[in-house]
Amino acid sequence: MILAICAAALCAFIAPAAAGSGIPEVKAYLNGVDGHSILAPSTLFVKIFGSIFGVSAGFVVGKEGPMVHTGACIANFLGQGGSRKYHLTWKWLRYFKNDRDRRDLITCGAAAGVAAAFRSPVGGVLFALEEAASWWRSALLWRTFFTTAVVAMVVRSLIEICRSGKCGLFGQGGLIMFDVNSADPSYNTPDLLAIMLIGVLGGIFGSLYNYLVDKVLRTYSIINERGPVFKVLLVITVSLLTSCCAFGLPWLIKCTSCPIGMEKECPTIGRFGKYRSFQCQPGYYNDLASIFLNTSDNAIRNLFSSTNEDEFKLSTLFIFFVAIYFLGIVTYGIAVPSGLFIPVILAGASYGRFVGRLLGSTLNLDVGLFALLGAASFLGGTMRMTVSLCIILLELTNDLLMLPLVMLVLLISKTVADSFNKGVYDQIVEMKGLPYMEAHAEPYMRQLVAGDVCSGPLITFSGVEKVSNILHALRMTGHNGFPVIDEPPFSDAPELCGLVLRSHLLVLLKGKKFAKNQVLTGSEFLRMFHAFDFAKPGSGKGLHLEDLDISDDEMEMYVDLHPVTNTSPYTVVETMSLAKASVLFRQLGLRHLCVVPKTPGRPPIVGILTRHDFMPEHVLGLYPHTIPHK
Amino acid sequence: MILAICAAALCAFIAPAAAGSGIPEVKAYLNGVDGHSILAPSTLFVKIFGSIFGVSAGFVVGKEGPMVHTGACIANFLGQGGSRKYHLTWKWLRYFKNDRDRRDLITCGAAAGVAAAFRSPVGGVLFALEEAASWWRSALLWRTFFTTAVVAMVVRSLIEICRSGKCGLFGQGGLIMFDVNSADPSYNTPDLLAIMLIGVLGGIFGSLYNYLVDKVLRTYSIINERGPVFKVLLVITVSLLTSCCAFGLPWLIKCTSCPIGMEKECPTIGRFGKYRSFQCQPGYYNDLASIFLNTSDNAIRNLFSSTNEDEFKLSTLFIFFVAIYFLGIVTYGIAVPSGLFIPVILAGASYGRFVGRLLGSTLNLDVGLFALLGAASFLGGTMRMTVSLCIILLELTNDLLMLPLVMLVLLISKTVADSFNKGVYDQIVEMKGLPYMEAHAEPYMRQLVAGDVCSGPLITFSGVEKVSNILHALRMTGHNGFPVIDEPPFSDAPELCGLVLRSHLLVLLKGKKFAKNQVLTGSEFLRMFHAFDFAKPGSGKGLHLEDLDISDDEMEMYVDLHPVTNTSPYTVVETMSLAKASVLFRQLGLRHLCVVPKTPGRPPIVGILTRHDFMPEHVLGLYPHTIPHK
Repeated sequence: MILAICAAALCAFIAPAAAGSGIPEVKAYLNGVDGHSILAPSTLFVKIFGSIFGVSAGFVVGKEGPMVHTGACIANFLGQGGSRKYHLTWKWLRYFKNDRDRRDLITCGAAAGVAAAFRSPVGGVLFALEEAASWWRSALLWRTFFTTAVVAMVVRSLIEICRSGKCGLFGQGGLIMFDVNSADPSYNTPDLLAIMLIGVLGGIFGSLYNYLVDKVLRTYSIINERGPVFKVLLVITVSLLTSCCAFGLPWLIKCTSCPIGMEKECPTIGRFGKYRSFQCQPGYYNDLASIFLNTSDNAIRNLFSSTNEDEFKLSTLFIFFVAIYFLGIVTYGIAVPSGLFIPVILAGASYGRFVGRLLGSTLNLDVGLFALLGAASFLGGTMRMTVSLCIILLELTNDLLMLPLVMLVLLISKTVADSFNKGVYDQIVEMKGLPYMEAHAEPYMRQLVAGDVCSGPLITFSGVEKVSNILHALRMTGHNGFPVIDEPPFSDAPELCGLVLRSHLLVLLKGKKFAKNQVLTGSEFLRMFHAFDFAKPGSGKGLHLEDLDISDDEMEMYVDLHPVTNTSPYTVVETMSLAKASVLFRQLGLRHLCVVPKTPGRPPIVGILTRHDFMPEHVLGLYPHTIPHK
Repeated sequence: MILAICAAALCAFIAPAAAGSGIPEVKAYLNGVDGHSILAPSTLFVKIFGSIFGVSAGFVVGKEGPMVHTGACIANFLGQGGSRKYHLTWKWLRYFKNDRDRRDLITCGAAAGVAAAFRSPVGGVLFALEEAASWWRSALLWRTFFTTAVVAMVVRSLIEICRSGKCGLFGQGGLIMFDVNSADPSYNTPDLLAIMLIGVLGGIFGSLYNYLVDKVLRTYSIINERGPVFKVLLVITVSLLTSCCAFGLPWLIKCTSCPIGMEKECPTIGRFGKYRSFQCQPGYYNDLASIFLNTSDNAIRNLFSSTNEDEFKLSTLFIFFVAIYFLGIVTYGIAVPSGLFIPVILAGASYGRFVGRLLGSTLNLDVGLFALLGAASFLGGTMRMTVSLCIILLELTNDLLMLPLVMLVLLISKTVADSFNKGVYDQIVEMKGLPYMEAHAEPYMRQLVAGDVCSGPLITFSGVEKVSNILHALRMTGHNGFPVIDEPPFSDAPELCGLVLRSHLLVLLKGKKFAKNQVLTGSEFLRMFHAFDFAKPGSGKGLHLEDLDISDDEMEMYVDLHPVTNTSPYTVVETMSLAKASVLFRQLGLRHLCVVPKTPGRPPIVGILTRHDFMPEHVLGLYPHTIPHK
């Protein structure tokens, strides 16, 4: 409980963003949602230590999600050029000070997290591709591959160094965490039917898991909103519940006599063995205690093992499955960094082994492999990934011959679960209200046009604008992009010159290159600034409106916006189908999309579409009768 | 030579498109280049049998590339709803009659090809992702994954059925073709240095390979252009050369005495063993003959084997490497379906084993693993894939512990080779003159705007257009898209209504729903047609201009184009940077991009950009002084 309180206190008081898995947040960031302090250095700190405390406290949580978040935080830390606050800055890192390279760097960080967590370099690349990233380029494939190759080499060297056993639990199991590589697994029709059953049930249990996690999260968010103290109290409650289960449930189980010929290893001496005595007399062991009162890695290893089929009783597997399933659900959402992979794998493995033992004699495959397939079905049912899970499981277990079966189970469970609800990470993103842009347009968008959803009022600037007007607009609105319109005498008729960003306007105003009259000062201006002055700062960093010090005289002067205007903004005509505009917005990764009028003789811009204008809440709020097809 | 002539005759006389690997063509097709007969049923037929004849003839060619092409052809065959010519049609396949779904289907076909060729289901998905596909969606990941899972299950069942040995060579080696799974490979600093050397040299040899293949292809294309007979003669020449090498070079090698304790297996009795006697007396074997006069699969298995380090002499490996390297180069490009994977793996494996034996005593890793790393370095150096090659090699060899080293070698060889030239498939696409759209914009495009490269003359239609005008335009130009402009009285001023496709115009004209005057007949019209009438036909299929039979009276009538006009075409302003227009065009997978004027009072459309307008040849032809940065 002390460890639990430490983890909760760190999360509740220092960095609330560090609670939970972190994968949904990273996913949303890579989609373009620059959420507050999601990747801040304080979050990084709390994520690392909170995760250590949380896992040590015995919660049913994994370290994998937090490691992905940690990787992304480190990448962000480097991407914003270190931290001035902690006096860690490197000049060469300024090359990452733009949206695209920072996004790439954070994708690599997420890949590195998976690669390190599962010792699965290729799985890391695929996880980044399939789950984390919203935009993918071949250069990114190459970069993540490089990152995870480095991770693999480093992990391998560390394991080599730790071979002597000086590094505690690290390095156990070598490069392959749950090696089940065995003889050729032969299976026949009853096996295949059982495997399909596992897939279907795994899909149902997985989607039920997602549903319950969502409900629990909504309940917890009410409690958590009441303040940090309530967060800590909630953590203490869950910690008590977990301890009661872990130390109480094994009493329900009868002792099993040690397998013959294993007198040396059974019951286990030391803390982490396979046969724990618990309340049993010598020569006997408690099988539930052997998995419950063990590290999660060892528990999974025990469940996957195929050396002794009768190692775990049916009742043990059933109790463990139910306990882990519900503990996993109630633990996610408390103020502790908590990954979902390990609880899901544990529940899935015990369920798979249970089914394998239940059908027992009719099957050819051994129960260890059924445990693996059960884990695959649960992972497919909750997370809905395919290729990446397949490769992660392959790299975890080193059993290539099981690959076709794992693929089959993943396909079935994902298909079944997809008919009920969304993947758990997507659900959490939605629950947190993050404006995540889906890759496809919603069907109801086909009934609308781009002009329908433009929300006003539109604020535009002239090509050479009065300083006071700009300051007023910046102060009154939170907009990040403003259209610039060239008017006579700079053009024959009003025409759209381009788009200017808030951050660039602030740099421009800070430079104070103002003129008394409406004149073009472009070329002079460019000499004053360096390209890096306009580099994207870290989130929450950079110039603020309050940093500007503009005198009353200067307020009446003019500034030429042309040098900082993007003269090639992407535009759509107002009669463009909203679905197609949404595809354009999403595929090109835009933040602003200019809507221009179809007929001449009107102002040259109708409005600006941002991410929020495409959100179902906004569109359906404006047009409640447009039925969202499922 | 008879087999070679059969293969050549099939290729030269029936389907010239079936020659070569087929991967570049599939890659170009998935990029949007709908080349003539690339995926036609006749190509499919020739590809299958030509590949069988070509491989049996003993050419240094693989079956992997052709299998990818075969998979894509089968997918295309299904995608265009079977074939009316061969009386194989299915009505439900009409759902694939649109660009996107057909593209997806063909991507799945390519993935299935790799999955079947290497028995590598996940490798197939990644190959499709990394090398074949130009656009990627998560739905596609799921579909290719499903396809390759089915392939894996089917291949496994067939292997199970063939276990009794009734299926000839099929099924040898089980699901894992070149199993090298062994004890923990431990390596130290000299090993790592040797591996890096292999990577660097592999990159250099790989890029040299690409360079020479390109030169040879250009030479061959001059010969091949002279007619089918010359194609066959070229094939005969290469066949003679290959036979001379295969049966001549082993005479240069001294016989080796059989390893002790292997008297039963050495020299080999039968056709495909490890120790072939060739000219040697009993108790001796010829090691060069053992790899040269063998199936390529067995040759690779022998080179990867680590049971007997001295099995192959240094001189043998050197001669084999040089012979295969150059035979591989001169064989690609003759009129025979020829994959590149096997020649490259063979050359790489012999080179890796050569280096391993040369450095011999200082190394920890055995020569079989060095052969694997050599193959990886050559593959990386020629094909420049990363993740997919990594997984394909993993699934071929089942050695997870080698994964970090394979990644390292691939990274090094790709990096080294990329500094010299492009990947071999990209090079072939370029050499064939296919208008392949790169994912990124070229730097010189930033100096130009969209309006600069519009090539005229522009042909536009009115919203309600005279039949004769449409027919004239269709006859005079090869354009596939025409802008439709609404003019008074249908609008206040001329405005862009949308874009109409040639194929839809033909369907419209075939329907003969004409009117005497300029009136809107939209709603009536829609009742006449079914959505599937506008489905995309197979390439070369569908309505042609000659199929229309329009009388002179009808020529003077009007037809309402509105119902078939796409009223939401993507547009860019003429002053949009060409680089950004190119990104828009490529990312959204467009075929036509409308360029609209910036200032009012001009015709509502300036021009249409197509794929050809973005090609370097076109742009640099118009603006030769725009230096293409490398």
